[in-house]
Amino acid sequence: MELFNALSVAEACRVLDGHLRLSRRRITVPLFKALGCRLYEDVKAPEDVPGFSRSTMDGFAVRARDTFGASESLPAYLDVAGEVLMGKGVDAAAGLGQAWRIPTGGMLPRGCDAVVMVEYTEELDGRTIGVTRPVAPGDNIVAPGEDISCGEIIYRGGRVIRPQELGTLSAAGITTVDVEDPLKVSIISTGDEVVDPQITPGPGQVRDVNSYALYGLAARAGAAPRLCGIVGDDYSLLREVMEKELAQADIILLSGGSSVGARDVSARVMEYLGQPGILFHGMAIKPGKPTIGAVVNGKPVFGLPGHPVSAMVVFMLMVEPLLSRGKYPADEEEFLLGFPVAAAITRNLRSAAGREDFIRVGLRQQGKNLMADPVLGKSGLISTMSRADGLARIPADLEGVEAGDQVRVRII
Amino acid sequence: MELFNALSVAEACRVLDGHLRLSRRRITVPLFKALGCRLYEDVKAPEDVPGFSRSTMDGFAVRARDTFGASESLPAYLDVAGEVLMGKGVDAAAGLGQAWRIPTGGMLPRGCDAVVMVEYTEELDGRTIGVTRPVAPGDNIVAPGEDISCGEIIYRGGRVIRPQELGTLSAAGITTVDVEDPLKVSIISTGDEVVDPQITPGPGQVRDVNSYALYGLAARAGAAPRLCGIVGDDYSLLREVMEKELAQADIILLSGGSSVGARDVSARVMEYLGQPGILFHGMAIKPGKPTIGAVVNGKPVFGLPGHPVSAMVVFMLMVEPLLSRGKYPADEEEFLLGFPVAAAITRNLRSAAGREDFIRVGLRQQGKNLMADPVLGKSGLISTMSRADGLARIPADLEGVEAGDQVRVRII
Repeated sequence: MELFNALSVAEACRVLDGHLRLSRRRITVPLFKALGCRLYEDVKAPEDVPGFSRSTMDGFAVRARDTFGASESLPAYLDVAGEVLMGKGVDAAAGLGQAWRIPTGGMLPRGCDAVVMVEYTEELDGRTIGVTRPVAPGDNIVAPGEDISCGEIIYRGGRVIRPQELGTLSAAGITTVDVEDPLKVSIISTGDEVVDPQITPGPGQVRDVNSYALYGLAARAGAAPRLCGIVGDDYSLLREVMEKELAQADIILLSGGSSVGARDVSARVMEYLGQPGILFHGMAIKPGKPTIGAVVNGKPVFGLPGHPVSAMVVFMLMVEPLLSRGKYPADEEEFLLGFPVAAAITRNLRSAAGREDFIRVGLRQQGKNLMADPVLGKSGLISTMSRADGLARIPADLEGVEAGDQVRVRII
Repeated sequence: MELFNALSVAEACRVLDGHLRLSRRRITVPLFKALGCRLYEDVKAPEDVPGFSRSTMDGFAVRARDTFGASESLPAYLDVAGEVLMGKGVDAAAGLGQAWRIPTGGMLPRGCDAVVMVEYTEELDGRTIGVTRPVAPGDNIVAPGEDISCGEIIYRGGRVIRPQELGTLSAAGITTVDVEDPLKVSIISTGDEVVDPQITPGPGQVRDVNSYALYGLAARAGAAPRLCGIVGDDYSLLREVMEKELAQADIILLSGGSSVGARDVSARVMEYLGQPGILFHGMAIKPGKPTIGAVVNGKPVFGLPGHPVSAMVVFMLMVEPLLSRGKYPADEEEFLLGFPVAAAITRNLRSAAGREDFIRVGLRQQGKNLMADPVLGKSGLISTMSRADGLARIPADLEGVEAGDQVRVRII
């Protein structure tokens, strides 16, 4: 197995992608439980929406041709044949020169093909109206199937269900859906110095930060995270825990072990677990350089940096796309869509050429402009992530940015 | 009570704000359940993080002054007094000219105030190193309390808990938090033509779209939505349902009733319920004009438009801020932060002056630029919301935008 060194984000994604076989499990859920899930397969419309010609205005349903040539000075006179009630059909069909009073949302009688807004009619008596503007067929109505057409594929499999997808599916009468079971993410912290946050640290010990931070990121991305606790820098113990997790989880996140010795233990276990094993060791990004990427039996196994900020950044770049979309961005343009906010950076920042930098920034609207203020403070401090609204990206081909330059930002 | 007509978004927020008394209920939850919740009150740090001087490098802990003047040609020679192990303290204190081997994350012995990276040392024998570069006090270490300082307010009440807040709180040993109980949102659909999505519509009937769409929006904003079903255009029945919901919910969303008659029924009930009642009737926005805003006993009651697209847009502008932040934006700049994405609109669009327009757009990266393609199709169709990635805003003082103009977009 070829082992790559210090890959770019795009290269790391491509290298992993060649070996990934992410699990896809179908579960059937009631629609209101499907928010944030991905559709398991294409969904077809079982019927037309709307199922009938529907008025979008309060007015009169007419045969459009009966209004041709109508004007204020020479209205078209139509017989009011009846009134359409909300939620009811009309038995009769429209004959020559007939109009039906109709509310917004009402069903057009057969033969009618347009609605005249009430503003463009004058009532002569209870039985006759004058139409002062012509309408064309289709005016002020929604035709059957115009929103959703029977048999069409409403959504492709893999689509993430947002509120508007809930609305659209319910419009078509689809109230249970097959979605992908959320991916199971096992989160393991390592490091002899790391203790459970509930325990008071002794001399030289620190509380586990990465477990909760990664748990939150995974949950927010729609996955099912599992906190596996803390394992010291012990080869046999770590191997035992990882074998157990690998048997039931879809993705393994190992984090911590910031010392050289601890990293060695993690790498040896990741290499032992199975094929193809470790695919890269190090990424050309900051923060996040000491990242190990592996695939074991089609499942991604990440050795994330011990620094919480680095671990979170690498998660956002390398893990989050798999959880929320089931795949990595297809190209540079799709990747940039993940950094949709453009803002003016407010300080000069240096960056090594050949390395992508991800800068914690606060976002602030100033007049018409959005400003990105780099968060000050040593890079390893978790508190700096809380003072940030987003991550600004300095591409690998730049050696830095100057105050006032536009940067692309992901909200975090 | 003064009744306003066709308010701007900012005016509508201000008018409601003057009468709102949103409920705040404290609940205590384990930290990993707090994601997306708002802190109930300020949180203070019970201790320093880190609790000790911590190395950020693999190298040697030293007294910085022992390295002053060191260079490649004239290294400072230090005695290696021992090795710091991960997660352990060192009993001894550093004496003159002493160094301790230390891993990244290790605890500095007393008396040491800096770490020399291993790259800037040369080992002479097992007991002596030469330091080839001086360090200043504080170099390559994190000082006690530098991340989080004991007694400082880590977060103000009202802060929304993201993954980085989970990490920071766990770093400080805070594993249960007091958060605000999610606001209870009752969602009532009205309209004689509307049927439950599970029911096959008869002639003139349509399935309820708004209930699911609003449910999704409320859930995504961190609220506890409740689907109350469909009520026909019947004054007594609607009054009964709304009184019941108002007794237990924090916010009432009434939607549907797109015909004039149905809107009248909704308005009469909203007016009946209590003081101050309806505060505005209509907003100067598109879509979303026929919106009714009311407050009853401090609780917001919204009469949302019947069109699903309009109802969703008004929700995002008028309801979502209350659910996710507990308040409306304080000013125009804070409001604009809600539309953080700048993109080039790809078609000319007209807009009436004095009216804010919210355009469904697809977002697409093209080279270095983000493009916003307006979604085509009649405005009332729910399927157009699914084809949109965002809502672009045309401010009230513009009469439109031209292809190529920058617009501000909210991701939806």
